[in-house]
Amino acid sequence: MFSEISKKEYKDRIRKIQKILQEKDIDVLVTFGSESEPQNLIYLSNYWPAFETACVVVPVEGDPILVIGPESKTFAMDYTKIDKIRQVLEHRESSEPNYPGIKLSTYEEIFDEALNGRAIKKIAFSGLTITTLPVYEAIRKAAGRGEILKADDILIQLRMIKSQNEIAFMKKSAEITMKSFEAVKNNVKAGMEEVEVAGYAVGEMFKSKAENLAYTPYLLSGKRTNQAIGRASHKTIKKNEPLQFSCGCRYGNYSSSIGRPFCIGKMPDDYKSLVKMGIELQKVVIGTLKAGMPASTVFRKYWEHLEKAGFSRFFLYGPCHGTGIMECEHPFLESDSDYTLIDGMTFQVDIFLGDSDYGMRFEDGVVIREDGVEEFTSSYREIIEL
Amino acid sequence: MFSEISKKEYKDRIRKIQKILQEKDIDVLVTFGSESEPQNLIYLSNYWPAFETACVVVPVEGDPILVIGPESKTFAMDYTKIDKIRQVLEHRESSEPNYPGIKLSTYEEIFDEALNGRAIKKIAFSGLTITTLPVYEAIRKAAGRGEILKADDILIQLRMIKSQNEIAFMKKSAEITMKSFEAVKNNVKAGMEEVEVAGYAVGEMFKSKAENLAYTPYLLSGKRTNQAIGRASHKTIKKNEPLQFSCGCRYGNYSSSIGRPFCIGKMPDDYKSLVKMGIELQKVVIGTLKAGMPASTVFRKYWEHLEKAGFSRFFLYGPCHGTGIMECEHPFLESDSDYTLIDGMTFQVDIFLGDSDYGMRFEDGVVIREDGVEEFTSSYREIIEL
Repeated sequence: MFSEISKKEYKDRIRKIQKILQEKDIDVLVTFGSESEPQNLIYLSNYWPAFETACVVVPVEGDPILVIGPESKTFAMDYTKIDKIRQVLEHRESSEPNYPGIKLSTYEEIFDEALNGRAIKKIAFSGLTITTLPVYEAIRKAAGRGEILKADDILIQLRMIKSQNEIAFMKKSAEITMKSFEAVKNNVKAGMEEVEVAGYAVGEMFKSKAENLAYTPYLLSGKRTNQAIGRASHKTIKKNEPLQFSCGCRYGNYSSSIGRPFCIGKMPDDYKSLVKMGIELQKVVIGTLKAGMPASTVFRKYWEHLEKAGFSRFFLYGPCHGTGIMECEHPFLESDSDYTLIDGMTFQVDIFLGDSDYGMRFEDGVVIREDGVEEFTSSYREIIEL
Repeated sequence: MFSEISKKEYKDRIRKIQKILQEKDIDVLVTFGSESEPQNLIYLSNYWPAFETACVVVPVEGDPILVIGPESKTFAMDYTKIDKIRQVLEHRESSEPNYPGIKLSTYEEIFDEALNGRAIKKIAFSGLTITTLPVYEAIRKAAGRGEILKADDILIQLRMIKSQNEIAFMKKSAEITMKSFEAVKNNVKAGMEEVEVAGYAVGEMFKSKAENLAYTPYLLSGKRTNQAIGRASHKTIKKNEPLQFSCGCRYGNYSSSIGRPFCIGKMPDDYKSLVKMGIELQKVVIGTLKAGMPASTVFRKYWEHLEKAGFSRFFLYGPCHGTGIMECEHPFLESDSDYTLIDGMTFQVDIFLGDSDYGMRFEDGVVIREDGVEEFTSSYREIIEL
């Protein structure tokens, strides 16, 4: 039986933000979300929009407000953990209906309500990089003489450390994705198009009660396996050519992803040596991760191993990125990362090697613990020849 | 065998835009797209981003440029019909990696290249409403003293009338979606969660070679059927309660959608009368649509029928919205619409009636012709009791 994150946990998140606003003498936090970038909305309200966009407005004290578009009221009411809902035109869908006769609110009215009529001095805006122009301009105008501060950090810091409930959803999401890989393994045949093979994965995900895909599946074949970002296409897959399964789903609003290279029949030798290197690196990186470790050290150890093995020319991406509500979220783990790993942080260990001919990717989710990591998935880290 | 829209048709689209720019004395057109709002990018380049965003820059003469993020080069190259590709940081994913050591372009360099070093006087911007702030600001800065004009109309007008090739993809897309409804009809059982039922639809879509969903499926049950925008949830479906199938896929980058209400077992009488009204209205509206008809007349005839039947209190949405690359795109058909239907326009006829207890929706795609419409789907416009 599905049970979502409790209303109490949502209220705690709001309270933590209000404490930060108080300390920083900020009147209100605003954060925006869309269908493809819903992370902060989901975190604060459990609402994930479709077609339209939305914002959450958190005043320094009192109740938060969920601001949605003209068509999403019954939808939002069914999901949101925020009781106050207001509708504004700027959150409408991109086909820009006029909605003649429908009464909507303005951001002026919403700020007035949130702050009990007090004038705004400071707005903390989390997620400006994903905010659309008309929504930003409506907020900018409503803020009057108030200052808008870029405040991504407030939500990044809160979201970075996951609660036990969040981790439970992430594990279940990863488990479903692993099942979807098995559906592919059991049904894939040479001669199918990449999209047809992806069909076994996505069908299995929903039938296993995922609410959606975490991203459009990368069921890639042949030369296409070297795409860092990709999408299953109409290409027909062949025997003995590199195949890459990179898929993920959402469960309880949390994302997962696994990556596994495989082949129908025997793997070409040079591809096999790349895959073996991937398996080895996955082990090295996972063995390095633990609370207290500087992120840059993890990168260095990964890179040293890659260089020593003579494979650094195949580096395409890696070794880790944050994960949670979004399959890919803060923090990235790069050579210049300047943070230290903390218990409760979650990463995708994501080893992607290749060149202009092909690529291979092993990917699994983990949560950082004091003495190492807990792995969300670990099966099939092997040479897979079907 | 899949065959995409030809490079020539893409070139024609660019040439049409350049002609408009020339007439209006505009130096360059810019349009933005994201994972969930890719319409203008797809139309001009066949590229649909994931994780990252992108722009197309069309100078008044010479070659267009596809501007993408740091991680999408091999991906974009595999799809784009635009040869020149440049990468800028502002199109990176929302987790904001730094990409140490990677060489990127700036919009200053891109405009310089597009205009052969001439200073920009006027930029036409199509799709400002979906553009993210950092991308807009980078363009604003690079434009220097140049003026940015809101120019949604240029692309709306071009995209509104579909070519034969576009319609062929839309028909195929609709056909796949109808097949996915049959997969649901054949497998749905009381006791399943909504998402599990949706699994039969999405699995069938990809197995039938769709490249993706047009939107997250609304497999809604009971009271949830009254959501204008919705999403399959963990609710368990029951015998004799209203069920709503609203799903769509993408094929050759073109979207489809069908809506059908149904029941496992006997439909409750009051719901059945609403469904009968829906079938009748679908017929009335489809019978009204043809080239030369004012859009507002279609709305009026629909509304008159609804009122005369005594059902206007059940009006939730309708009767039509534009469709194409996006499941929902310009033009909307509302009481205040001031345009006339033209041969080659495509609509979803979308009748949505309900109240606080339940809703029902019939939806089918059509293309406007001189003497009426060609329907993309028409099966199962009936009382469906499984």
